Amino acid sequence: MNLLLLEDGDFVAADRVVLSGRRLKHLHEVHRAEAGDSLRVGRLNGPMGRGQLLTLSTDEAELQVELDQPPPAKLPLTLLLALPRPKMLRRVLQTVSAMGVPRLILLNSYRVEKSFWQTPFLEPAAIREQLVLGLEQARDTVLPEVLIEKRFKPFVEDRLPQLSAGSLGLVGHPGPYPACPRAVDGPVTLAIGPEGGWIAYEVEKLQAAGLAPVQLGERILRVETAVSALLARLF
Amino acid sequence: MNLLLLEDGDFVAADRVVLSGRRLKHLHEVHRAEAGDSLRVGRLNGPMGRGQLLTLSTDEAELQVELDQPPPAKLPLTLLLALPRPKMLRRVLQTVSAMGVPRLILLNSYRVEKSFWQTPFLEPAAIREQLVLGLEQARDTVLPEVLIEKRFKPFVEDRLPQLSAGSLGLVGHPGPYPACPRAVDGPVTLAIGPEGGWIAYEVEKLQAAGLAPVQLGERILRVETAVSALLARLF
Repeated sequence: MNLLLLEDGDFVAADRVVLSGRRLKHLHEVHRAEAGDSLRVGRLNGPMGRGQLLTLSTDEAELQVELDQPPPAKLPLTLLLALPRPKMLRRVLQTVSAMGVPRLILLNSYRVEKSFWQTPFLEPAAIREQLVLGLEQARDTVLPEVLIEKRFKPFVEDRLPQLSAGSLGLVGHPGPYPACPRAVDGPVTLAIGPEGGWIAYEVEKLQAAGLAPVQLGERILRVETAVSALLARLF
Repeated sequence: MNLLLLEDGDFVAADRVVLSGRRLKHLHEVHRAEAGDSLRVGRLNGPMGRGQLLTLSTDEAELQVELDQPPPAKLPLTLLLALPRPKMLRRVLQTVSAMGVPRLILLNSYRVEKSFWQTPFLEPAAIREQLVLGLEQARDTVLPEVLIEKRFKPFVEDRLPQLSAGSLGLVGHPGPYPACPRAVDGPVTLAIGPEGGWIAYEVEKLQAAGLAPVQLGERILRVETAVSALLARLF
């Protein structure tokens, strides 16, 4: 936790918060914080700054905060991701949030096992929990938007063309395609496939929606590694 | 497992292997393989090719193999990594192996907790297990070399200058430094710090050994994410 993320409900005055639960535990066990300490804080979906620890007990912590800095800029990106397996999903949500992706669309694909859609990790509270961990890691305050699209064809045919209009559209896919471009200017719509990759039909459909296949070399990377590698290369 | 990795002990003839244990289980449960199937195979530290499944039982599998392709090229990189916490270490070893790093040096740092050096995940067999998983993921056969340096100062003062000679030396470190370069030519020596970062003294010592600090933006990334992001940007 490189940033103590404050929620609206924590505020007892405009410049004062009271914390308990997970963040209090973290202050005690990881930060080994004491009254008087100054910590980096940020208000969820708001500004960041410093907080001074006024009191700290086993029940709660009270901080006086000064929030005067903007959060870091987001990437100009819409990321489409074939739904990863549940354990990977949790880590990918953290990575996406930490790297500054403002909009993530979790999409079905032929190679997404049907059982993956049943995971409790897809519940809104579970998604939010991982996104918050990513923000705390990276020192950001603004939650990414996460959309869930369980039907590939209607989404890609009917909605993706408008959604990607005016952006550089790319599909990460191994094969005889151009290398993923570097340091692009302007907005990007990037689709990353499941373990085992998109099937040919899906690549065709994504191409028809305006996304061009690009590759990242002959090594097959796990989804989480591919996400961070592609984003680091593009921006 | 995108490649079935064969060890010397598996070979019962020049073109024939017998498998049991973890890989047999994977053939049954994940590949749902049957006699006659053709699979991607590679010989550890050797060539890659195809294997045809001759027989498959609950006890063993026998394959006829043809190994006629070279493994993918490695990155021209020596990666120095402050020892991550045990759970992260396992994943980082997989990532490093999958991305084609030929040499990894696990190094002490002020912010590496002493207890991290006690983990059984640092035993040679445990390191090898994770490296093999990375090779199987990426379709490579050549194990990276992993060196362990428990003393920062003597390593950085006495050995690092020769080790990094003739390469572009870089230290990933947040701060007012140039951005990490992109698409470099030639060999690189890259040092990535622990959670919480290198301390100033360590950055000075790494600079004195010829490594220049570079940054990757204001977001603080987990070690695993930083590794894949920095490598994707550099190469």
